[in-house]
Amino acid sequence: MAYLNENYLKLQAGYLFPEIARRVREFSEEKPEAAKQLIRCGIGDVTEPLPRAAIEAMKAAAEELGHRETFRGYGPEQGYEFVRSKIAQFDYRDRGIEIADDEIFLSDGSKCDCGHILDILGGQNKIAITDPVYPVYVDTNVMAGHTGPVRTDGSYEGILYLPCTIENNFVPEPPREHADVIYLCFPNNPTGAVASRAQLTSWVQYARNHDSLLLFDAAYEAYIDDRPHLNPLPGGEEGAKRQVRAGGEIPHSIFEIEGARECAIEFRSFSKTGGFTGVRCGFTVLPKSVLARTENGKKLALHPLWHRRWSTKSNGVSYPVQRGAEALYSAEGREQVRALIDHYMGNAQILSEGARAAGFPVHGGTNAPYIWVETRPGQTSWQTFDWMLRELNVVITPGSGFGSRGEGFFRVSAFNSRANAEEVARRLGESKPS
Amino acid sequence: MAYLNENYLKLQAGYLFPEIARRVREFSEEKPEAAKQLIRCGIGDVTEPLPRAAIEAMKAAAEELGHRETFRGYGPEQGYEFVRSKIAQFDYRDRGIEIADDEIFLSDGSKCDCGHILDILGGQNKIAITDPVYPVYVDTNVMAGHTGPVRTDGSYEGILYLPCTIENNFVPEPPREHADVIYLCFPNNPTGAVASRAQLTSWVQYARNHDSLLLFDAAYEAYIDDRPHLNPLPGGEEGAKRQVRAGGEIPHSIFEIEGARECAIEFRSFSKTGGFTGVRCGFTVLPKSVLARTENGKKLALHPLWHRRWSTKSNGVSYPVQRGAEALYSAEGREQVRALIDHYMGNAQILSEGARAAGFPVHGGTNAPYIWVETRPGQTSWQTFDWMLRELNVVITPGSGFGSRGEGFFRVSAFNSRANAEEVARRLGESKPS
Repeated sequence: MAYLNENYLKLQAGYLFPEIARRVREFSEEKPEAAKQLIRCGIGDVTEPLPRAAIEAMKAAAEELGHRETFRGYGPEQGYEFVRSKIAQFDYRDRGIEIADDEIFLSDGSKCDCGHILDILGGQNKIAITDPVYPVYVDTNVMAGHTGPVRTDGSYEGILYLPCTIENNFVPEPPREHADVIYLCFPNNPTGAVASRAQLTSWVQYARNHDSLLLFDAAYEAYIDDRPHLNPLPGGEEGAKRQVRAGGEIPHSIFEIEGARECAIEFRSFSKTGGFTGVRCGFTVLPKSVLARTENGKKLALHPLWHRRWSTKSNGVSYPVQRGAEALYSAEGREQVRALIDHYMGNAQILSEGARAAGFPVHGGTNAPYIWVETRPGQTSWQTFDWMLRELNVVITPGSGFGSRGEGFFRVSAFNSRANAEEVARRLGESKPS
Repeated sequence: MAYLNENYLKLQAGYLFPEIARRVREFSEEKPEAAKQLIRCGIGDVTEPLPRAAIEAMKAAAEELGHRETFRGYGPEQGYEFVRSKIAQFDYRDRGIEIADDEIFLSDGSKCDCGHILDILGGQNKIAITDPVYPVYVDTNVMAGHTGPVRTDGSYEGILYLPCTIENNFVPEPPREHADVIYLCFPNNPTGAVASRAQLTSWVQYARNHDSLLLFDAAYEAYIDDRPHLNPLPGGEEGAKRQVRAGGEIPHSIFEIEGARECAIEFRSFSKTGGFTGVRCGFTVLPKSVLARTENGKKLALHPLWHRRWSTKSNGVSYPVQRGAEALYSAEGREQVRALIDHYMGNAQILSEGARAAGFPVHGGTNAPYIWVETRPGQTSWQTFDWMLRELNVVITPGSGFGSRGEGFFRVSAFNSRANAEEVARRLGESKPS
């Protein structure tokens, strides 16, 4: 009989979001009237319509496929030049970051990329992951056999966890121990924390000293607020402009840090910029200068392996989707994306103030669409989830779902309509402590 | 330093299609005038416009995303119910095959699925692969570490090869040896061969006797010609209808064979039906009754593992693409797909006759869009490639690119315009043996 991949059996059964869905369903059946006014601030899914530029581009591309002269079949597995070049230009070279068009690999989303990147890495790597964390990093490593069994607190043997706490402002320092592969995500999901240039520099230094590989998830980089008044700087207005051009004190990309081209891979997504959660498009940036080693110490570039992975296991992203992604870089597209982000960040401010007014200590929410809120003393994050669901009819995400260091917190997503954000703030304001 | 996946280093450098592209480029630079009349019958990519039903559905879906009331974000990772149910109904239940909606897993193409399925299988499996074969089956197993090094003839140690030859009509019998996982593809790429009900029954029996898993690639099933006159049957017209309803003597699905629900996974694609090579959509059928084993002999269903794989490593297929796929099952959609297939099969007939008239022995091409042609005695498949390129200005695929048993053959693809197919037949008819 064929053997199955037993690593899957190590995975914990109750994945976070299905458990949330189960409790919401149970509540809705029990209290159908209250359920009608339920507001969901749980899963990080966007709510606002897609930018018009993307829609028109997708429709035009679909129409192109209907005519022999403009029909396109298989495209380049790594993405069409028309979109790879736009990404490299606007997101990198225009910000003074040296990235070639063919160092961009288009994909159907950065969730997929975070998993697929393990295809080209060896099983011997010591993996370091922040805690709390986006569960996909952990689970894909479990599935690939890079961990031991699960412990009672939900952590896995064999992974080096990097605690993100109030004390370190949710940005861990590089550890004393050696790690081969380190996952970093800033602006962070779930904590909303951002890493400063100095903090990222220390990570790049660690990676270079240890010959490690940084897997940098920048899916939320567009939420970093570069407006000069938030980062008062020496040099007056000119200095501030220079700073913004250089990416501000909070880098948008790991490749803003010197030396990162030798030790980092970056993941980005159009999900939270262009609202592409249902359209599916993201990309990986893999510089040709990133090396990894064989068992006997030979150093080889990862770029050709990743290129081959795409050629063999994929036929690239849907053509109309690629045209939609390209359109996000047009003048109108960029303006429409900006408006979407401003909308969600307006929500983040309203929600942060609401939670604060209700006496909850609040983190994140200024350079990220997530607010990381401390539970009331003595309350677990699932108790708070149940209280919010039943008393305020608001769905949030319990922090413990993101790892053991998430206990004592809950995540509020700013992806919502303005009216809903205001209503959640109002309900929080009227709430009695549980 | 991070370790890389050394299995990638076993892969042969010169993948088939890049080598074809290189030779075509070289020829085009050398003979720019002749290159102008080049006709490509190499890579199996469709050429005709997408069915109108799919285009309109994709455009409407893109427009939906532009309005708050109809906006959709993350969808179910395994595909929307609206398309899974159509597939299960039209492709299976309407043909008397018991498949539940949630046994259909939508994907961005069957090439991807063929690779990803290895995620849920163990590394201990003995893999059997037909020769010649679609290179993706072999290469993804090499990448996953299921093989030894490559041999001089391009085959890999550790794989059990099943020769497909003129003698067995390109349909191998089950081997004497044990194999845990067997890749079968009918109608076949590259040979165009089809397997009869009796032949597939013997494979299902083998799988049940050996507790093996069949990975059945049915990407070309729609090219099977069910018209009664081709399969004269007892029982007159009524008997023929019954036969067609039951899938004809040539099954469209492995699940037409009794017992296959316990030992088979099927891959299908919209690439060659709806012309979705650039749109990207396919699906896997994984019955809940398919089991695999752990190292210590526990038998478990693969369905929950595959479900978990999708939940963790993907966010599903682009929403407009899913609507496009759904539209292929509408009345107009099915008619338009039928017309496309008839068009390509008309080409297959013209190309087969052309090659035959030029003295080439021809296989395939009656229930598949590929014609598998014997080279002139003493000529290798790459020599024939060069001769076709230089003398006829026609690009084909040399058989040896599909495996060592492909030597002595070349593949002609019927995916082309009618005018091109006729012109290729004309040039073949006027050709002098090389």
